[in-house]
Amino acid sequence: NIRNLGMEKVAMTVDFPCKYASSGCEVTLRYTHKTEHEETCEFRPYSCPCPGASCKWQGTLDAVMPHLMTAHKSITNLQGEDIVFLATDINLPGAVDWVMMQSCYGHHFMLVLEKQEKLDGHQQFFAIVQLIGTRKQAENFAYRLELNGPKRRLTWEATPRSIHEGVSSAIMNSDCMVFDSAIAHMFADKGNLGINVTVSMCNCS
Amino acid sequence: NIRNLGMEKVAMTVDFPCKYASSGCEVTLRYTHKTEHEETCEFRPYSCPCPGASCKWQGTLDAVMPHLMTAHKSITNLQGEDIVFLATDINLPGAVDWVMMQSCYGHHFMLVLEKQEKLDGHQQFFAIVQLIGTRKQAENFAYRLELNGPKRRLTWEATPRSIHEGVSSAIMNSDCMVFDSAIAHMFADKGNLGINVTVSMCNCS
Ligand SMILES: [Zn+2]
Ligand SMILES: [Zn+2]
Ligand SMILES: [Zn+2]
Ligand SMILES: [Zn+2]
Repeated sequence: NIRNLGMEKVAMTVDFPCKYASSGCEVTLRYTHKTEHEETCEFRPYSCPCPGASCKWQGTLDAVMPHLMTAHKSITNLQGEDIVFLATDINLPGAVDWVMMQSCYGHHFMLVLEKQEKLDGHQQFFAIVQLIGTRKQAENFAYRLELNGPKRRLTWEATPRSIHEGVSSAIMNSDCMVFDSAIAHMFADKGNLGINVTVSMCNCS
Repeated sequence: NIRNLGMEKVAMTVDFPCKYASSGCEVTLRYTHKTEHEETCEFRPYSCPCPGASCKWQGTLDAVMPHLMTAHKSITNLQGEDIVFLATDINLPGAVDWVMMQSCYGHHFMLVLEKQEKLDGHQQFFAIVQLIGTRKQAENFAYRLELNGPKRRLTWEATPRSIHEGVSSAIMNSDCMVFDSAIAHMFADKGNLGINVTVSMCNCS
């Protein structure tokens, strides 16, 4: 376990270019901050925002919507700030994802409802909204998800995620609307669950 | 397995008095509907509404508040339609109940936050409001529970339960505000969780 103190010293004091320099990033950083920057570097390519990770597409932000419209034609797209995201057959067994697009304020948002099944059969639902845009752009918006039932209402309000960071870490940390199958059935009608989605502009950042 | 058809026939056609007749109930019913009625009979004695079932007190509705004020002196009571229910030390291990009273509109409401711990260590929180009153009186109110965090809000709105039915079945069916420990920590401040509670009158029944 011999440490190369000479090289370590170089690494501590020399600035390295970001790994996305060839895509346009001009940032140079100490080695210790390189990974941290690259994780959120705006020149990092965008991955396909569809949940489930079966699509391996990557590209620039401008290319995301054309990709969705050609490779994921079946995704419904609704216009307006206030729409209903209807998830059908929520009783389907196993892990299932429901996806919809919502367009308003000149931007496109992707609504995701994910059902996970634990080993003991316990089911959990996660609903979240992500902007087809940068993190900075996402800060200008807020979204509200609402489940409306007989004399009951569950509401979750938050800032949309950017598709650059994706939704998987938010789902893992319950930083989204979370509910179990008892609540899903309480608000569903014949196995179909309608989620009211409202996107608004905010001056909060 | 000899059936007493004679007696069965009597049971099917004769009306029985409700078991709370001596407390004032004048209802008589067919045997098959007796249990169903007695479950919700307004003359059934009230149990102590404190969660956990350690207190075995029973009595009339009028006697509930005096019981709480003498036998459960430590419960905080706040006045007003819009208060903050502060649950301290939500990281305490194991199953824990937090209880508070809220008085408004000439009625008393009991706020309950219950933490359950599954065998696998997974924690769930359940928050709910019950009226010190009858089911019929409860129908005249609505309550809203709100968790407010940095650019995030979780809201649950529903009709309060009556203490006559209690909160345990609602908690079991997730018919209340349900959240896990990740969400609790997101909204908590130094282990203390503030829940905004608003009670309103409604003309909904
Ligand atoms: Zn960079
Ligand atoms: Zn794709
Ligand atoms: Zn009765
Ligand atoms: Zn008691």
